[in-house]
Amino acid sequence: MQAKTPEQSKTIMTDLVLPSETNPLNNLFGGELLARMDRCASIAARRHSRRIVVTASVNHVAFNRSVPLGSVVTVEAKVSRAFKTSMEVFIDVWIEDRESGLRDKANEAIYTFVAVDETGRPTTVPEINPETELEQQRYAAALRRKQLSLVLAGKMKPNEATELKALFS
Amino acid sequence: MQAKTPEQSKTIMTDLVLPSETNPLNNLFGGELLARMDRCASIAARRHSRRIVVTASVNHVAFNRSVPLGSVVTVEAKVSRAFKTSMEVFIDVWIEDRESGLRDKANEAIYTFVAVDETGRPTTVPEINPETELEQQRYAAALRRKQLSLVLAGKMKPNEATELKALFS
Amino acid sequence: MQAKTPEQSKTIMTDLVLPSETNPLNNLFGGELLARMDRCASIAARRHSRRIVVTASVNHVAFNRSVPLGSVVTVEAKVSRAFKTSMEVFIDVWIEDRESGLRDKANEAIYTFVAVDETGRPTTVPEINPETELEQQRYAAALRRKQLSLVLAGKMKPNEATELKALFS
Amino acid sequence: MQAKTPEQSKTIMTDLVLPSETNPLNNLFGGELLARMDRCASIAARRHSRRIVVTASVNHVAFNRSVPLGSVVTVEAKVSRAFKTSMEVFIDVWIEDRESGLRDKANEAIYTFVAVDETGRPTTVPEINPETELEQQRYAAALRRKQLSLVLAGKMKPNEATELKALFS
Amino acid sequence: MQAKTPEQSKTIMTDLVLPSETNPLNNLFGGELLARMDRCASIAARRHSRRIVVTASVNHVAFNRSVPLGSVVTVEAKVSRAFKTSMEVFIDVWIEDRESGLRDKANEAIYTFVAVDETGRPTTVPEINPETELEQQRYAAALRRKQLSLVLAGKMKPNEATELKALFS
Amino acid sequence: MQAKTPEQSKTIMTDLVLPSETNPLNNLFGGELLARMDRCASIAARRHSRRIVVTASVNHVAFNRSVPLGSVVTVEAKVSRAFKTSMEVFIDVWIEDRESGLRDKANEAIYTFVAVDETGRPTTVPEINPETELEQQRYAAALRRKQLSLVLAGKMKPNEATELKALFS
Repeated sequence: MQAKTPEQSKTIMTDLVLPSETNPLNNLFGGELLARMDRCASIAARRHSRRIVVTASVNHVAFNRSVPLGSVVTVEAKVSRAFKTSMEVFIDVWIEDRESGLRDKANEAIYTFVAVDETGRPTTVPEINPETELEQQRYAAALRRKQLSLVLAGKMKPNEATELKALFS
Repeated sequence: MQAKTPEQSKTIMTDLVLPSETNPLNNLFGGELLARMDRCASIAARRHSRRIVVTASVNHVAFNRSVPLGSVVTVEAKVSRAFKTSMEVFIDVWIEDRESGLRDKANEAIYTFVAVDETGRPTTVPEINPETELEQQRYAAALRRKQLSLVLAGKMKPNEATELKALFS
Repeated sequence: MQAKTPEQSKTIMTDLVLPSETNPLNNLFGGELLARMDRCASIAARRHSRRIVVTASVNHVAFNRSVPLGSVVTVEAKVSRAFKTSMEVFIDVWIEDRESGLRDKANEAIYTFVAVDETGRPTTVPEINPETELEQQRYAAALRRKQLSLVLAGKMKPNEATELKALFS
Repeated sequence: MQAKTPEQSKTIMTDLVLPSETNPLNNLFGGELLARMDRCASIAARRHSRRIVVTASVNHVAFNRSVPLGSVVTVEAKVSRAFKTSMEVFIDVWIEDRESGLRDKANEAIYTFVAVDETGRPTTVPEINPETELEQQRYAAALRRKQLSLVLAGKMKPNEATELKALFS
Repeated sequence: MQAKTPEQSKTIMTDLVLPSETNPLNNLFGGELLARMDRCASIAARRHSRRIVVTASVNHVAFNRSVPLGSVVTVEAKVSRAFKTSMEVFIDVWIEDRESGLRDKANEAIYTFVAVDETGRPTTVPEINPETELEQQRYAAALRRKQLSLVLAGKMKPNEATELKALFS
Repeated sequence: MQAKTPEQSKTIMTDLVLPSETNPLNNLFGGELLARMDRCASIAARRHSRRIVVTASVNHVAFNRSVPLGSVVTVEAKVSRAFKTSMEVFIDVWIEDRESGLRDKANEAIYTFVAVDETGRPTTVPEINPETELEQQRYAAALRRKQLSLVLAGKMKPNEATELKALFS
């Protein structure tokens, strides 16, 4: 199974924010953004693995910027690292101002997907060869995040999470 | 401003899984569940604060069990801890088997909301008095999670996160 | 087949009123509320019978209070009486004021469901043992409503509907 | 204010049954049909009154025939009688077989709407002149239904409901 | 296979414009109207052919009038001409003013559908006998449109499109 | 107002085909694809003009390939030519096979949008400088299409449409 680059799984989902997706302040519901990111990231994971994929976990997501009604929102997803049967997908969210045309980073998020066969059993996926500097940083950090995930799930003891432990020493 | 109990914000959202919400394996999309949990948790935060609330962050969420088409899904949310203007909300998700009537834990998640006034500016919220043992555990763990969130956002140095550091020592 | 209490089928569906569900006065469409109540009541009937259930009829429903955009609406359903293969479900609808936290009764409705097997054929369901005073009142009134339903469907002669006739004598 | 005929408010809403509207037996949810009928009937009431209209009540509705996925459903609504500020609307629902082209009556229902001004206050509506025999029967029966509605709402004593009482004597 | 009249396939779809279907000027999105017309026209084609039908093409559509939020929109579709396995459907769109009750033509469009069997293979359909003058005009013009369609698809040489060539001579 | 390239308005909308969007053969409804293309193309027109845009017309669209349930569909739109206040947008639709990863052209379409101010009045837009060979071909053909559109709308006499006439000589 040949390794692939993050670019090969790149998925772009541009769409408007509609009235049925906004809260009382006329901003996009956090939950709607989470659902859009999941759909976009799942397509990236599917492009990398050429398999059915299911969401395994969502990393910590912070909502720092509100996304107003009528905005154009661009969600971009790329597989940042592949493990045996799972893939970490990095998602960047941009909104753009209609009048100035400027794009601003509104959010980023990290989802993990597992590739499965038709019966739902995990199957192996190709490796990732990061190319750009940003892709390499995200690739390196993915291992630390995987350890954190295992610790939080009680599947790894904190003091065995060497990558993570280094962070707090 | 009088303190409240988690029970006072308890919010239950029971609903079916419809065909338009399922993936090729006929299970609920992870993203749809994230959106349902956001709506349910935001109502709990609104009940606690009596304010407009906006999603600030979502903690790490793992999807350990698939939720099949036609399932009855119950999402239960309670405010687990209140900070100055923000609230941590703990969400438990249950699915039940139609024939046996048995309920199984399908998921849990932690969202944070900020209470705002009509102009979107953060406003103070009541404190939380945990009552049951589980509520007290979640209350205590909330501080550790807040520190992790600040560290991940680069707003606190890892070695100042005393609660968190203890976890890895 | 063991009798059950109304409490065992209790189903709570709390959710927001979104812009796509409102009329030109910015209130929830009557039809949307009817659809939410149907989904909630069908889950209660399913919990009681542990069968697939289909809506058989809706009793008279009056809309006395409008439900404004952005409201939190709580729909609560409990099986009020079981007949051979059908179940009457009583539904109470509450809306709450964000600032005061007060809950007001916005509506009530009565739906009837039939339990069916995988081929759509009616199957028997457990009996109901009402517990509270309100449950007992609703249980008693259910027979009168069933007779009215049979009369309106032309399946019972008005003068044979003893429970109903008493009402107008 | 000139009287109108039922035909002048006639409203036809033909549409398909989509997968997101069906239950586990692949039939249209009762609640979805109630919502479609509400939208269709509200347009008929609006055509009669030329006002904003809000749903006041739904008469007893029986679901005698299931409506399978992929069906073509035709909902037809006409104002059957007008009172001071309210209108009773009669709704007939037809499904048609694709291969034979035959239309079958799947349902009928009766909704009541109130005409309101921009502030939500009830306003008077034109009278109805029924033309066909069926329209005349429905017009006559409407008074009996209005009395039943008032009795059920506790706004009229059963023994004052002369039209209704006659039914059970 | 007996010929049919356009009237026999007439399909009427009346519905409201909801907030989730409108653009920043509060008018119905062009794309939403295209989707409604497709559903309505497909039912007309199905009524004519009694077969599963799939959209083959959409003729040039101009949006000359905006359709504001809250409008009542009536889409009317009739098969205008049948070819061997395909049908041209003419669609008229009306909006009506609530206060005056006046109906205005908002749009017209022409879609083509192909009748297929369960495996998706094209099957023959009955011929059309136009009755009214308008139906006859549309029937005659349909051949010209079919030639334009074949030319644009590169399946007919422009100078063989005799009906079309006459238009530009 | 500075001219722009088609690339500057390029908009990509990748998404899945969900069950609620499919016909009885489990393929995407033609009307749903028309609606997606409208949303995507309107964003491209907005990026070019930095104005609110409204759909003015849709060119002839042929549906040559069916798009099955579960497909990943990529809609790509670029402004192909700008006139005084209107923009022609060219849309390419691709579907990809999950297992082979191959992309196939499923459709193309041409929509026209008008840029308007907040009151809905048309405003001027920047010109287009086509760069690639394909962009130049589409730019040249746009004038021919505009003439066809004017002829079909009765706003230009067929024999004045010099570009178009040449096609049939």
